Amino acid sequence: MKLYSMPSSGNSYKIRLIMALLGIAYDHIACEVNSDALDQAKNEGKLPLGKLPALHLDDGNILTESGAILWYLAENTALLSDDPLKRAGILEWMFFEQNRMEPVIAVRASLNSYAHLAEQATPERMADLLTAGNALFGLLEAHLKEHDWLVGDAPSIADISVYGYTHSSGTRGGYDMSLFPAINAWCARMTKLDGYVALDHIP
Amino acid sequence: MKLYSMPSSGNSYKIRLIMALLGIAYDHIACEVNSDALDQAKNEGKLPLGKLPALHLDDGNILTESGAILWYLAENTALLSDDPLKRAGILEWMFFEQNRMEPVIAVRASLNSYAHLAEQATPERMADLLTAGNALFGLLEAHLKEHDWLVGDAPSIADISVYGYTHSSGTRGGYDMSLFPAINAWCARMTKLDGYVALDHIP
Repeated sequence: MKLYSMPSSGNSYKIRLIMALLGIAYDHIACEVNSDALDQAKNEGKLPLGKLPALHLDDGNILTESGAILWYLAENTALLSDDPLKRAGILEWMFFEQNRMEPVIAVRASLNSYAHLAEQATPERMADLLTAGNALFGLLEAHLKEHDWLVGDAPSIADISVYGYTHSSGTRGGYDMSLFPAINAWCARMTKLDGYVALDHIP
Repeated sequence: MKLYSMPSSGNSYKIRLIMALLGIAYDHIACEVNSDALDQAKNEGKLPLGKLPALHLDDGNILTESGAILWYLAENTALLSDDPLKRAGILEWMFFEQNRMEPVIAVRASLNSYAHLAEQATPERMADLLTAGNALFGLLEAHLKEHDWLVGDAPSIADISVYGYTHSSGTRGGYDMSLFPAINAWCARMTKLDGYVALDHIP
C-alpha cells in the first residue's frame, strides 16, 4: 500500500494514525501544501477527487476521502463495531466532523498557520470561526463529559476522525482549549493508545 | 419510526427519499427553517447535534446526520454493497458530498432562496460559490460521463446523497445545469426509481 498524504493536514494525519494503531506497513509519499510533489501527484492522476489523502492499494485501486479510507481500514477490527446502531453512531460523528467541524476548525487553523492564506484571514472571518468553533467544541465537550470515547466504551474511527484536527486546535487554530477540560482529557487518552503517533511523525 | 425533517432541506430530503425507495413507513414531523416546530424540537432535545434530519427509532434511540441515517437504513439492502471496496467507494462520494459539495452548493441555494439570509448573499460571495460549485459539478460530470451510477452498476446511497442537493441546483442554487448533461441524465434516472418521491413530497 502506498499513501499520498500531506504532513501538515489533519485529514491526512487520520490515515497515518490508523495505520500506526493497526500496525499496517505502507509506503508514504509526502505532498506538502504548495509543493511540487503535490502538483505532480495531481497531474499524474494519483488523487481521484483532487485532494489528499489518497490510498493506493496493491491491486491498483485508489481510495480517497479520509472518512472512507478510515472505514475501509477499520472494517473487522476493534476500531469499528459490528453493531448497526454503533456503526451509525460512529458515522454520525465522522459526518459531523467533516461537514460541521472541519470547515470551521481546520479552516481557521489553515488561515492561522499557512502564510499563503494570510490575506484571507481577516479579523472578522477569524472572529466568526472562533465563535463557531467554540460552539462545536461545546457539543463535543458535553458528550465527552459523560463518555470516555465518542461511541461505546472503546476507541473507534469516530475518535480518530474528530481527534485529527481537534488535538491541535490550540496551537494551530488559536482556540483557547483550556475551556474544554473533557476534550483535553480525551486527547490525552488518545495519545496513550498502543501504536499512537503524533501529527509530526512522518514515516 | 419518527422522522424530524426540514421540508426545504436537501439533507432531510435524502432520508424521505430512501424511506420511500425502501418502502418504510414512518411518522413525519416537519420542522421548516425558522419555524416554531424547529425551535420546539431543539428545546425538547429531539435533535442531538442540533440539526435536522433526526430519526427517532421505536426503541428510543435517536440517529442524526443524514449520511449516518442513510447508512443505517441501507445496510443489508440493494442500496448498499457487501463488497468492502464498493462500500469505501460509496462513503467516498458521501463524504465528498458532505465536506466539499454541501458547503458550496447547498449554501448557495440557501443564500439564493431563504429571505432571512439575503443580506449575506453578497455579489462576491455568490460569484465565489458559483465558481466553486461549477468545479465540483465538473468532477461529478466527468464521473457520470463514464458511469450510470456513482458506484458499481446500480443505485446506492451514494447516489441519494449526491442527488439531494444537486437535482435542485439550477432552480434553487442558480447554477446553469445545462453545462452538465451527464448529471442531468443521471438525475432523470433517479426520478425513475421505484418509489421515488420529489423534494416537495411531504408525507
